[in-house]
Amino acid sequence: MKIESIHNSHVKEWCKLKEKKYRDLEGLFLIEGEHLIQEAQKKGVIKEIIATDEQLKADFYVTETIMKKISTQVSFCKRIAVCKKIEEQPIQNKLLLLDAIQDPGNLGTMIRSAVAFGFTDIIISMDTVDVYNEKTIRATEGMLFSMNIIRRDLTSFLESIKCEYTIYVTDVKKGESSKTIEKDKKIALLIGNEGNGVKEELKEYANKWIHIPMTSSCESLNASVAASILMYEMGDYGE
Amino acid sequence: MKIESIHNSHVKEWCKLKEKKYRDLEGLFLIEGEHLIQEAQKKGVIKEIIATDEQLKADFYVTETIMKKISTQVSFCKRIAVCKKIEEQPIQNKLLLLDAIQDPGNLGTMIRSAVAFGFTDIIISMDTVDVYNEKTIRATEGMLFSMNIIRRDLTSFLESIKCEYTIYVTDVKKGESSKTIEKDKKIALLIGNEGNGVKEELKEYANKWIHIPMTSSCESLNASVAASILMYEMGDYGE
Repeated sequence: MKIESIHNSHVKEWCKLKEKKYRDLEGLFLIEGEHLIQEAQKKGVIKEIIATDEQLKADFYVTETIMKKISTQVSFCKRIAVCKKIEEQPIQNKLLLLDAIQDPGNLGTMIRSAVAFGFTDIIISMDTVDVYNEKTIRATEGMLFSMNIIRRDLTSFLESIKCEYTIYVTDVKKGESSKTIEKDKKIALLIGNEGNGVKEELKEYANKWIHIPMTSSCESLNASVAASILMYEMGDYGE
Repeated sequence: MKIESIHNSHVKEWCKLKEKKYRDLEGLFLIEGEHLIQEAQKKGVIKEIIATDEQLKADFYVTETIMKKISTQVSFCKRIAVCKKIEEQPIQNKLLLLDAIQDPGNLGTMIRSAVAFGFTDIIISMDTVDVYNEKTIRATEGMLFSMNIIRRDLTSFLESIKCEYTIYVTDVKKGESSKTIEKDKKIALLIGNEGNGVKEELKEYANKWIHIPMTSSCESLNASVAASILMYEMGDYGE
């Protein structure tokens, strides 16, 4: 189907998906660029593809003006896909729990690292930034489709897993060093908000405290760097 | 001094510093927020402080409208400081070399991690993003003032250090694992561009190749995460 008017109802629907409210309402989100589209195809979550170039495979062909209106990127994009939100799966062994992560780039980077280091599931608090925010998606570099991501109230989630998983809570200094810590089979690694760390009421669930050793000149690491280093030390993968 | 007109020449000068061209020309840059201002004061690089609130220490007091014009942040900021660019120092033992890093957030995060893990100097290529970009500065979380940062042509820089330092070049798979690599005393760790990795002509200087082990599901890590994990393994600090 070819669309040339910017006032077309499909165009309006697609543009709405740039807002979280509509993504939640429709259960849909947008992805841009070939790499992401390929990953989404493998996962089978694409509803429809929009393109400017009729040589490319798509369900809708639009003008460049319309494409620019739908896109959130500065550089021009030839294909955009509307995807269905990914269904939740049952949790496995290595869980990353995120408490109120605010920066979409940090969330996306943590999703990417979680896949890299063999973490199986990410549980994000109700007040964590949207997984389907375009900046989050871009930072995952396609790894969004390889990770089971669940949004939950973390207090009740921790309550439900506390007998089965060892709950590691990160701190700047407290607890064992990441370099020497013992890896348990079933791990829940809790990472806190960029500015404020882990909420007090969640700290009560800690079975083990863990910190990353560093010089005294630096107070703390970026949240996604800290999470990545801990997953690098605790995850299940080749070496 | 009190300034109430948005057309005041000082205001114009400060606003110009939001552009790299003028920062380079004047050798000055802006920082926002109390934490950064404190770190800059310790380092003695502040030229002048601008504030809205006359209770706060400052050289210039301006209206909220002027402050918003100077500021690059969304949230309102009470004090902004004009700083003199930090002078280069002679290099020491643990060098991070950055080839064409494009994302200011990544650069800032790497500066922060370099301080955390006892790296002594960062050498950025001519085509790396500006250190004094407001997003870079924000991502350093004040650590900008604790790191010696030098901009150089990396080919001639590598040529000059190749006999004295072990040059580690990162790759997705090639070389030794970061988990088992031997740490030499004088290290230069070379990290490549976010999309393209290390330039071919720089790879020739590699004494050792190094990779971070990961699952086959993930192609690569975010550049600042990769750099941080390698510095965590190779830096000089407490543990």
